[in-house]
Amino acid sequence: MMLLRKLLFEDSVTTMDESPQRSVQGLGSLPFYVGGTQLLGLACVVITGVWMGSYHGGYAWDGSGQEFNVHPLCMVLGLVFLYGDAILVYRVFRNESKRNVKILHAVLHLLALIIGIVGIVAVFDFHNNTKTHHLYSLHGWCGMLTFLLFCVQWLMGLGFFLFPGTLMAVRSWYLPLHVFFGLSMLAMSLATCLLGISEKLFFSIQNTYSEFVPEGILGNVLGLLLIAFGILVGYIVTREDFRRPPHPEEEPLSVHFKTLTEGGASPSSP
Amino acid sequence: MMLLRKLLFEDSVTTMDESPQRSVQGLGSLPFYVGGTQLLGLACVVITGVWMGSYHGGYAWDGSGQEFNVHPLCMVLGLVFLYGDAILVYRVFRNESKRNVKILHAVLHLLALIIGIVGIVAVFDFHNNTKTHHLYSLHGWCGMLTFLLFCVQWLMGLGFFLFPGTLMAVRSWYLPLHVFFGLSMLAMSLATCLLGISEKLFFSIQNTYSEFVPEGILGNVLGLLLIAFGILVGYIVTREDFRRPPHPEEEPLSVHFKTLTEGGASPSSP
Repeated sequence: MMLLRKLLFEDSVTTMDESPQRSVQGLGSLPFYVGGTQLLGLACVVITGVWMGSYHGGYAWDGSGQEFNVHPLCMVLGLVFLYGDAILVYRVFRNESKRNVKILHAVLHLLALIIGIVGIVAVFDFHNNTKTHHLYSLHGWCGMLTFLLFCVQWLMGLGFFLFPGTLMAVRSWYLPLHVFFGLSMLAMSLATCLLGISEKLFFSIQNTYSEFVPEGILGNVLGLLLIAFGILVGYIVTREDFRRPPHPEEEPLSVHFKTLTEGGASPSSP
Repeated sequence: MMLLRKLLFEDSVTTMDESPQRSVQGLGSLPFYVGGTQLLGLACVVITGVWMGSYHGGYAWDGSGQEFNVHPLCMVLGLVFLYGDAILVYRVFRNESKRNVKILHAVLHLLALIIGIVGIVAVFDFHNNTKTHHLYSLHGWCGMLTFLLFCVQWLMGLGFFLFPGTLMAVRSWYLPLHVFFGLSMLAMSLATCLLGISEKLFFSIQNTYSEFVPEGILGNVLGLLLIAFGILVGYIVTREDFRRPPHPEEEPLSVHFKTLTEGGASPSSP
């Protein structure tokens, strides 16, 4: 909602590399797209919460099925909604200090990481309590791979972009990789959620799932909303005229300044 | 394999907008990346074929489980491997006539579409024969949505880029959308495959899946290989220095020519 409010009350800004017409055309629609992501993301979190709350007995931290319920809620909140918002900060805070936006990006990812760890501990606790093997399913494999890559990406982002000693050439080399793998991992995170929804439905309502019972439809709708969230975040981040404009006077040491002074574009900048 | 051979025997070419150093740096690695996609894609098709062949009794067209087995094989072959290759033609055939590459792109997609239809008919036949409801699961919803969007995208691509009467301004407007949604639908197709693998494993080995039985591991490995295929195709298509160079002398009416003569970049060109 913070992102939405920020955008709704911010005028579109004409930057040095945009004609006024292009700016109006492009940036005028940005608040609606970002608003769409916030609505979709919140809907996903709420539906996950209601699904586990209404159909599976709510939440607890005692190794029971109620502790398991913490898992989907944390994963959708952390590794989907907050992850997506962390990616979007470069589009929403287009004219704020790059350093502050970087810090916000890192902090939102850290929050996503912490909430993700709580969600993972919840399901491991539940498996231990019910004497179930860990990480046997495709959901488990994809989830653990995504989570480990997410941790590596966070640490590499910290080292490359926030550690002041990193050479500009190294930052320039790593930036497009960071952006590409960031989006790829969001896609992996979403695919893992879809697998989790499917697993949960097959465990819970295997015998009635094919009769279009309400829980099955709720889970399927949640899956489609997660896909819509991912596509909308991906669209905003990759759309050319939504890119953050270069601010050389603010950040003389940034990657953008380097490409700007060399006369090159920085098409892979976040 | 055609793509792989083409790349392995083609020298990297220095184009008008690239320095020789950049060309060598970037394009030199392209054959290895494309080769990687072909190996991964073929591995996915072979593993799917062997899985259905060895663990589920092979193939038939009689409404039985053997007809169902046609479904995963066709979907992985058509809507993953051929779909990915159709996307890659603009990177592999960098210096061939744009019109011919467009036609190859459309034909490969058409082939993917036809094979996809065979796969969908197979599962509908199987459901009819076993008196099972159609399209109740998240896999079914995602699959049908992806397939319908794929058909719309194919028809729109035909109308916008191969129909000679389409205005250049309209093509320029649609091009980035076509590229973005093409990649998004490949991701949706892959996510649908993961859901299908998970469903198949829960139907077949639900009681032993958690004991790391060979079929479960095979299905999970297939899932990871599909993810790797998607990420590698996405990386090749979005990497800046792998983009197809503009060839104004070959295609005076192309979108690229228009952006070139106006002095603009065409960063969203396929």
